[in-house]
Amino acid sequence: MARLYLNESPFPPSPRVVEELARSGYVLNRYYDRELWNKLIKLLSHYAKLPREYVSPYPSSSEALCKLLRLARRERLRAVSLRPGFHAMKDFARVEDVELEYFDLELPSFELDVDKLLKTVDENTMLFIFNPNNPTSNVLIRDPSIVREIASRVRILVIDEAYYEFSGITFAPLVKELGNLVIVRTMSKAFCLAGARVGYVLASPEMIKRLDSLRIKFDIPIPSIAAAVAALQDLDHVKKVVEAIKVMRSRMARELEAMGLRVLPSATNFLFVEVGVRGTEVAAKLREKGIMVTAFDDPPSIQNFIRVSIGKEDENARFLRALREVLKEMGRLAN
Amino acid sequence: MARLYLNESPFPPSPRVVEELARSGYVLNRYYDRELWNKLIKLLSHYAKLPREYVSPYPSSSEALCKLLRLARRERLRAVSLRPGFHAMKDFARVEDVELEYFDLELPSFELDVDKLLKTVDENTMLFIFNPNNPTSNVLIRDPSIVREIASRVRILVIDEAYYEFSGITFAPLVKELGNLVIVRTMSKAFCLAGARVGYVLASPEMIKRLDSLRIKFDIPIPSIAAAVAALQDLDHVKKVVEAIKVMRSRMARELEAMGLRVLPSATNFLFVEVGVRGTEVAAKLREKGIMVTAFDDPPSIQNFIRVSIGKEDENARFLRALREVLKEMGRLAN
Repeated sequence: MARLYLNESPFPPSPRVVEELARSGYVLNRYYDRELWNKLIKLLSHYAKLPREYVSPYPSSSEALCKLLRLARRERLRAVSLRPGFHAMKDFARVEDVELEYFDLELPSFELDVDKLLKTVDENTMLFIFNPNNPTSNVLIRDPSIVREIASRVRILVIDEAYYEFSGITFAPLVKELGNLVIVRTMSKAFCLAGARVGYVLASPEMIKRLDSLRIKFDIPIPSIAAAVAALQDLDHVKKVVEAIKVMRSRMARELEAMGLRVLPSATNFLFVEVGVRGTEVAAKLREKGIMVTAFDDPPSIQNFIRVSIGKEDENARFLRALREVLKEMGRLAN
Repeated sequence: MARLYLNESPFPPSPRVVEELARSGYVLNRYYDRELWNKLIKLLSHYAKLPREYVSPYPSSSEALCKLLRLARRERLRAVSLRPGFHAMKDFARVEDVELEYFDLELPSFELDVDKLLKTVDENTMLFIFNPNNPTSNVLIRDPSIVREIASRVRILVIDEAYYEFSGITFAPLVKELGNLVIVRTMSKAFCLAGARVGYVLASPEMIKRLDSLRIKFDIPIPSIAAAVAALQDLDHVKKVVEAIKVMRSRMARELEAMGLRVLPSATNFLFVEVGVRGTEVAAKLREKGIMVTAFDDPPSIQNFIRVSIGKEDENARFLRALREVLKEMGRLAN
């Protein structure tokens, strides 16, 4: 099976991770390792170019998003997310018992109409923006002044930068100026550590205190911390991974466009492709051919799309071959 | 510092854990490893002597307890815990936004008066019993018929068996007969995996479904699963660890009693010791001497106790020496 449906990195993490993981085994009888934890904070602080008190690691960015939703419930805020947007938010809202509202992106290219957004949100809103967005792969905001404006109009502005290393765009420096801005990042993508479940939050010390008060002690396992530390000590590996994925992504986008398909401009490790027929059907047929991709029935505007992660060379080639066959079968491509 | 305050194992986990952890590094770019997960379920099922559908691993027993409290909130149940009891329950209730009620154990030995308990709980209660109890170290229930009776009088009965390997007492077989019984266990103690944050729930498939619906996907990191799998494959190690701790525990209890202190009968990897003076003061003075133990101001009935984990031989000796000094300083022991 080619796993191209979770936007995982096709490459394993830095070889240093293996060593550090093994080493963590010798202290696994302990709930925490202060030294390792401090190393992680220091490395993240250096990586995000922010003082330590602006950084808080979480057991996955998913958990950080859950805790933010929990904060919204506690403080009786409206939680608003964009649509189409990160589909897991629905699950997070369910487990956190939060009713999520949606704001629609503009067709046909799923862009953000900021003026319209500002008319929808209010001073009682916790707004979630995934930048770049998922599943649409595009960047929604490039300009810090837009972030400043939105932040001034909501209670809390959460910007998820899961694909920061691919987009090169971050608003992390703004957390020093905007007390209500929360940046959420993950080590699952460019750092190739999805299985370690490590993410982090960048925000004002006050905001971090509020958020951290909603979690329990020792919630990040020592081996995960060790893996994150090792990965952060090998930024060359991250750079190589990101470059390799970008090269393959361009090639794949060109091939898909050559098939007459619309591909959204991607700033991530995946592509969002308009296939012209029901995406869930295409995904089911691809699965029969050993290729796993994602498609969505909701919202209707993306029913004719599939989301495909950039995999290894041979996986991408197999995907393209299989997609051609499927679209021919479905009458969408000429034989 | 001698860490004798978290009831950690003083011994590292099975050497197999190190190997398996290292191996997990090569698949860490993935969110999950189906094969490894299935292995964990199979091993836990075998270990707990229950069919697979009665077993659900959690990212720590703490998280399982949190999800249970979440269930209580969702279903508008009274959450009742025993007092003195597991102090972290207060934190769990706080983060899960649940008001916890307490039922007092009987002085002077912190035993459970079942008849009195049955008058307090009702069909709307989720009752938490830690058996053996923490911090009191004693077994509260030995007889399955008591469990049956309590279960028949509450909505959900949760029994935490964190120290099962030390007590030898489990009510796990009853989950096949009692649909509202939930057994919570951890791999943090006898398996020496505190840092991996792996626990598990044993309950009816229906109960597990209800509980699992409150969690998010991929919430246990791959290295933690790998560590748990390796540890479960080396039960000899667990046996040796438990035996060694029991031997040291008896010796330590005798020495403390020789000092004229009351020691509660322990079925755990720690001792609960009546020191005759304020426990928090003793703990603070011990800390100055490089020994970390726990003491509690709440409830008042345990203010003159300290809780000390069984450590390595030399740590235990250092603790005893330091305690003697401290109690002499405090006028509790003759010079």
